[in-house]
Amino acid sequence: MLKTANGTLTTGETDSRGRSEQMSVEMKPIGYVSTDAENVPRSWEISDVEGDLVFDESYKDGLSDIIPGQQIYVIFQFHQSPEFNSKFLRINPPRYNRKEMGVFSTHSPIRPNPIGLSILEVLRVDGNIIHVKGLDMRNGTPILDIKPKSQPDPQI
Amino acid sequence: MLKTANGTLTTGETDSRGRSEQMSVEMKPIGYVSTDAENVPRSWEISDVEGDLVFDESYKDGLSDIIPGQQIYVIFQFHQSPEFNSKFLRINPPRYNRKEMGVFSTHSPIRPNPIGLSILEVLRVDGNIIHVKGLDMRNGTPILDIKPKSQPDPQI
Repeated sequence: MLKTANGTLTTGETDSRGRSEQMSVEMKPIGYVSTDAENVPRSWEISDVEGDLVFDESYKDGLSDIIPGQQIYVIFQFHQSPEFNSKFLRINPPRYNRKEMGVFSTHSPIRPNPIGLSILEVLRVDGNIIHVKGLDMRNGTPILDIKPKSQPDPQI
Repeated sequence: MLKTANGTLTTGETDSRGRSEQMSVEMKPIGYVSTDAENVPRSWEISDVEGDLVFDESYKDGLSDIIPGQQIYVIFQFHQSPEFNSKFLRINPPRYNRKEMGVFSTHSPIRPNPIGLSILEVLRVDGNIIHVKGLDMRNGTPILDIKPKSQPDPQI
């Protein structure tokens, strides 16, 4: 396997347009969701569930400037979803009265890459832990990244 | 290596709280950004650049119900970023007059997992290609997922 700046490439080559067909990238969780809520809403459902995002100590300095009241995007792994296959390309989600939809028009947890997105409210930050409200992820969910939910930046 | 529902686990075990410490997950691009724009804004900058999201043919059915005018979240790989290390935990982004910030309070392309998020406007869909406006990703950027930018769902 080749080791590159952004992960371990397992197969494939870069073509003339700079595309890296068939390559894959390895992501490693930076933390986990911790909540004792017994019922957590489905992904992208309105939620008032509170809980903690517990980060690896080594990332603590990266959490500075996150403040109570702000909203953050959390990118996570759907770690308990069944493996994706072509049957899940068109699904019947509850939101749309079970109308058949393309998976990319939904927030279904069963998708080609098991990546979830949530928007959470920061309640407070204690060292390597962010206390949040609005959880729609299960206890133990691996967190891959967080970003501020801000307006796009003006060009510089 | 162990093969699981959601990727290939390389190391680690699940602890009593269901967390999978040290595990990593392998993501595979579902498509690529194609644009002939010579200057593409930095990630999360306001952009009027147009281009195409070209998906693998096998995912075409999953693109149904995406319509012109809607906005989509695009989750992608920062494939040309340098490898992350602890020096990049606190950075001096252009947006905030080079004030030092924690990386997770920014949309910096140099982050523990090289995951980017964009919000793009759909111009039209032709089979496995979505024509978009608002690109802030470079030509050849690998796409990992797309999701609708909708309001959170009411609980059912």
